[in-house]
Amino acid sequence: MAAPRNVVVAQSGGPTPVINNSLRGVVETCRELPELFGTVYAGRHGIEGVLREELLDLSAQDPGELALLRTTPAAGATGTCRYKLKTGQDEDLERIIEVFRAHDVGTFFYIGGNDSMDTAHKVSLLARDRGLELVAAGIPKTIDNDVGDAAFRLIDHTPGYGSVARYWALTVQTADQENAGSSPSDPVLVLQAMGRKIGFIPAAARLADPERRMPLLIFLRESRLGLEELADRVNDTLRRHGRALVVVSEGLDVGEIGERTDAFGHTTFSSSQMTVGQVVVNHLNRVGLAARGAARGNIPGTDQRHSIVHASTVDLEEAYQVGRHAVFVAAEEGSGFMATILREPGHAYRVRYDKVPLAEVANSERSFPEAWIEPSRTDVGDAYVRYARPLIGDDWPTVPMVDGRQRFARMEPILADKKLPAYVPQEYRS
Amino acid sequence: MAAPRNVVVAQSGGPTPVINNSLRGVVETCRELPELFGTVYAGRHGIEGVLREELLDLSAQDPGELALLRTTPAAGATGTCRYKLKTGQDEDLERIIEVFRAHDVGTFFYIGGNDSMDTAHKVSLLARDRGLELVAAGIPKTIDNDVGDAAFRLIDHTPGYGSVARYWALTVQTADQENAGSSPSDPVLVLQAMGRKIGFIPAAARLADPERRMPLLIFLRESRLGLEELADRVNDTLRRHGRALVVVSEGLDVGEIGERTDAFGHTTFSSSQMTVGQVVVNHLNRVGLAARGAARGNIPGTDQRHSIVHASTVDLEEAYQVGRHAVFVAAEEGSGFMATILREPGHAYRVRYDKVPLAEVANSERSFPEAWIEPSRTDVGDAYVRYARPLIGDDWPTVPMVDGRQRFARMEPILADKKLPAYVPQEYRS
Repeated sequence: MAAPRNVVVAQSGGPTPVINNSLRGVVETCRELPELFGTVYAGRHGIEGVLREELLDLSAQDPGELALLRTTPAAGATGTCRYKLKTGQDEDLERIIEVFRAHDVGTFFYIGGNDSMDTAHKVSLLARDRGLELVAAGIPKTIDNDVGDAAFRLIDHTPGYGSVARYWALTVQTADQENAGSSPSDPVLVLQAMGRKIGFIPAAARLADPERRMPLLIFLRESRLGLEELADRVNDTLRRHGRALVVVSEGLDVGEIGERTDAFGHTTFSSSQMTVGQVVVNHLNRVGLAARGAARGNIPGTDQRHSIVHASTVDLEEAYQVGRHAVFVAAEEGSGFMATILREPGHAYRVRYDKVPLAEVANSERSFPEAWIEPSRTDVGDAYVRYARPLIGDDWPTVPMVDGRQRFARMEPILADKKLPAYVPQEYRS
Repeated sequence: MAAPRNVVVAQSGGPTPVINNSLRGVVETCRELPELFGTVYAGRHGIEGVLREELLDLSAQDPGELALLRTTPAAGATGTCRYKLKTGQDEDLERIIEVFRAHDVGTFFYIGGNDSMDTAHKVSLLARDRGLELVAAGIPKTIDNDVGDAAFRLIDHTPGYGSVARYWALTVQTADQENAGSSPSDPVLVLQAMGRKIGFIPAAARLADPERRMPLLIFLRESRLGLEELADRVNDTLRRHGRALVVVSEGLDVGEIGERTDAFGHTTFSSSQMTVGQVVVNHLNRVGLAARGAARGNIPGTDQRHSIVHASTVDLEEAYQVGRHAVFVAAEEGSGFMATILREPGHAYRVRYDKVPLAEVANSERSFPEAWIEPSRTDVGDAYVRYARPLIGDDWPTVPMVDGRQRFARMEPILADKKLPAYVPQEYRS
């Protein structure tokens, strides 16, 4: 029997509070199958680390520290990147194959969204062309919940979404206490949610109040309401309730906000010169409120994707299980699949872990179901609540504390010895 | 023996995560002393509710709901206001005495900062002049920690500060995971902290990392560094570490940010047309970073004063105890005192509850100790850490969850019958 070959796992794109659980699922499951899997490496800062041959040895880490990855949010442990392997970046693709060959890598797990599934698919095809036996596998991840198809057939929800949804459910609850208490001087509190292109994140504000007791307005990008209509809705709410909680998508169309591009020319949002939340606050204060006092705004930014105490216990567990399942799929079915989470029919929430072809995910697109947007366009309906409520779990996660602080996993900087000449990733050459 | 007379408790100014504990301390302790205290009313939205004769009957509330005030943040349960009784608002003062007389109020507890202690003092003096027997008592509260004197002699720290300090300790920890993971595209993460005039809140970022392992820069208002120097420091940090966490005070002097005034003409900050955090992000991106990628910013706004899961268990308990102690002081010492928290000498953290004259607090001013600012001006020293570390406690508070949501206290709208003609508070007449 051949010696077990090594494993590379890499994550890509914006982090989530639970992303390290998928990593942990891969590492711990590979460790249970020593006849199939050798050393597990993580690409430092995702695929950039693979290109640079910076491979963090996860197998050499203290198992206690690996266990702490459960409640270590975001990607600080191994890093992520926004590096994209676009069509035409053939040198990069060839380099990946070269690095995998040099380190006897037999399995490549890529944790990310649709783009990453596309990359994993390309790597898989090129490896075959180049005569490298490689199993390429995908693990879904994104707070935006925009992986897969509109019919939820390829995946029910992505790991990461349940936690950001819980962030909004709990944050809107406490913001409601603030707004109710402070309404004589601050009757309008605007909260800006992530999810530039798709409304799943702001929609989760409704989970704070399925009974619709709060004066809560939700403006998804898909609501297609402009600033004037927004101000009218807010003032209607002020007339009725004397106060208003206004959740806006960072992708709401409010005109020019000075978007910036990131290191690689991709448009980024959180570093824009103005935020949608601020534009909304300024507009409301300019046109005037139907109540004494002013509008004010909170822009939590990245906090919603790294506040670990807001993480959903369901999400933490599912992120682990889907990573674990990806190992079984890789071992049993070979290359070309993404591990996925599908919801079982019936009233009780149950999922099963399955697989879908990478190519199918890479070419799919998800949208927020139009039927879940209420006729008012400022709310989502009960069908959304039924979909999302189980994802946020029932209780707080247990986040270990030491000396008054959160105890996060600490990875030792043990890297694989370099075997190849240095390489500058293509996008870094411009 | 005379019948016990009634009690009014009111809160003023910005809320804290623990403010309802002081309220609970008053209500539960008055209930233990039925021979001394009658019905406990809360002024709805603080002193505004007293002026309008809107008195919420706390004694009639379900004791289980009152117990839930422990982990119900901000002032949603009874309300607060920014209404100030300025010199010359004599009609308002007279009205307060009138309302107290009509409802047989013998004790008035005012929860707030220096201004509120001044108001409580004025009410106390006027009541005496008008022949109303009234005990006026103060209960300290503010996230800013700016009550009392610079020498910490009148009060060691205010209830509310420990919780916002814990918010920053834990938030900077998770932001560090984000920044470490995402540094190839987003090397600089700017976080804007409250505390417009005084640096205690941004200083608490240091509690995330007393060992100084993180690339963390803290810009208090008192650092007196401008945008140019800030950019230089950030770029120095980028050259050394490849990334930077930048905590800025919302009160940092960065030029015009379009401040607004609230309903009463007081300057407010969180509803300004631009935020200091955004100005800093824009400046950094304009002058250019000493690293590939962009700066981005989080403006958590009011979240830091209402996220209950970030509340300090020490703070939750102390806020309760200081409310309770205020009742004992009122019963035993009579009018004119603020209950206070003083720290016992020695290494172990211990406090005792005491009293100080309202007049002394009203005329005092606290500043952030210059000796606690490091020579670099971008950090605070170990003396600050020794002061603040005990205030954030050791573990998560227990926040009850029902059906996946936080279960906050619900007050029934049981109001005292009105006995006086309607009254429009003076500031509302303009």
